[in-house]
Amino acid sequence: MKWLALAGGVGGAKLALGLSKALPPSQLTIVVNTGDDEIFHGLHVSPDVDTVMYALAGLSNPETGWGIAGETFHALDRLRVYGADTWFNLGDRDLATHIRRTELLRQGLTLSDVTQSLSSALGIAHPIAPMSDDPIRTMLLTDIGELPMQTYFVKHRCEPTVSKIRFDGAESARAAPPFARALDDSDALVFCPSNPFVSVAPILAVPGVRRAIEGFEGMRVAVSPIVGGQAIKGPAAKMLQELSLDVSCVGVARQYEGLCDIFVIDDVDGDKAADIEALGMRAVVTDTIMTSDADKARLAEHLCGLLS
Amino acid sequence: MKWLALAGGVGGAKLALGLSKALPPSQLTIVVNTGDDEIFHGLHVSPDVDTVMYALAGLSNPETGWGIAGETFHALDRLRVYGADTWFNLGDRDLATHIRRTELLRQGLTLSDVTQSLSSALGIAHPIAPMSDDPIRTMLLTDIGELPMQTYFVKHRCEPTVSKIRFDGAESARAAPPFARALDDSDALVFCPSNPFVSVAPILAVPGVRRAIEGFEGMRVAVSPIVGGQAIKGPAAKMLQELSLDVSCVGVARQYEGLCDIFVIDDVDGDKAADIEALGMRAVVTDTIMTSDADKARLAEHLCGLLS
Repeated sequence: MKWLALAGGVGGAKLALGLSKALPPSQLTIVVNTGDDEIFHGLHVSPDVDTVMYALAGLSNPETGWGIAGETFHALDRLRVYGADTWFNLGDRDLATHIRRTELLRQGLTLSDVTQSLSSALGIAHPIAPMSDDPIRTMLLTDIGELPMQTYFVKHRCEPTVSKIRFDGAESARAAPPFARALDDSDALVFCPSNPFVSVAPILAVPGVRRAIEGFEGMRVAVSPIVGGQAIKGPAAKMLQELSLDVSCVGVARQYEGLCDIFVIDDVDGDKAADIEALGMRAVVTDTIMTSDADKARLAEHLCGLLS
Repeated sequence: MKWLALAGGVGGAKLALGLSKALPPSQLTIVVNTGDDEIFHGLHVSPDVDTVMYALAGLSNPETGWGIAGETFHALDRLRVYGADTWFNLGDRDLATHIRRTELLRQGLTLSDVTQSLSSALGIAHPIAPMSDDPIRTMLLTDIGELPMQTYFVKHRCEPTVSKIRFDGAESARAAPPFARALDDSDALVFCPSNPFVSVAPILAVPGVRRAIEGFEGMRVAVSPIVGGQAIKGPAAKMLQELSLDVSCVGVARQYEGLCDIFVIDDVDGDKAADIEALGMRAVVTDTIMTSDADKARLAEHLCGLLS
């Protein structure tokens, strides 16, 4: 049985890691949001792809959720001296990823090929692919203007009020080949507990993807990133509120109507199960909090048990 | 009185530092060889320019002569993991220089402008300029084939036998504007104790430069990089031998015939003074060994005293 996991952000990387412990490489493809990709200092940074790669390679910094454990920032300190805009934290080890990615892209490799090359080099056996090899940029219309995702997320610490989100370039993009193949031949699809607006929606914005998932023949499961009305991490709850949506796991579930068969909510949200089921999804209530690697594996195994 | 110093390599940077201590910024322009420039990992590296910049900024690693003191190599270690060719040592702080240079070049700045921007940011008041804003590549014909300078120098540790040297691209290059101005309005010219074949010759290969120096109206002084028949650092002595030239300060002086009025040799070479003077230059014998910063300033002051 083959699984396709859609991931973005720290929550996505956590469950992707859990799934990689529960499933062999031949049975799991992890497709990652690239709407956050940005050029910093002339280097192609893929924040969500890197977060998944570092998680699966055992390199993640558990305190921040992003970047590499034990990282140093000597290069960034000097870039600041040189007058570069350094609000986006790039560690020395992390920089190597961006330098190598940029170099390989310049040599003509696709982002899929580059991601495969980098993750193999990090010893990752499970296939990780970007949602698209084409540039798609998540743009947030806010009270201080339209901002690319990382500018909103890191530079402005998610403080601006979001009124609309669009995915620049999506209309002319294509699903990356590993993603298209996995959509076609997987038996189960997992929406990781990622932000539905800025992690999952960009993936769904790739032409043909929403329709493929609507018509997906296997089981489709989503895990709520909202627990007890709050996001585990990031601005999902704040965005639900600003977009005048229900700030709860039910508000998230509504984003997946027609795309999901099973919606997994946390024990603390057990009282929302009926509202979820009213949306035409089966509600599954379990402990969804992933603090340790064991938690991640346990949740992944629980999902596998649901669908196998 | 205005001075123009021509520099390359570690010896060049040492005297450039000394001159910067002896002369105010308005009276000194330092022009640096860029025949060693190379693209590593998609980044524009200017080894000789950086060696001069780091020396004047007080950042140099005194043990290696290249790079930054207290440097770390975390990014390079990971580039190696990613399969990149990492024979050229690039520290984390040093990488910031190359990342920023590459980015500013990409934005359309000239190498002169970029060098000015980087050195100002490092607090360097003395103008430092590349010999040219155009690409010139020092190529060494050796017994194992033709090699670019850094490949010969670092990758092959100067081991191949050199039979010929050419400066690829020189014919269509132009002197960088700060260099052209300094050639025009300086009262004194210093050839730093740099390798005559791979540090100074590339500068002389820029169209118009040799002629301008031949017709230079002020005094021209060169300091021998060969002391007691040996190079202080690098392959100058080995190259003199392989090119069937006199392996001594006299062999170097011959490279400067018609370009130099005063040739400075070390105390240990005092017996060569007559041979130097036979070439039509005044020979000056002094202690040319620059170990400490005080040594560098002392030699620079000695030169200033000779020409003022």
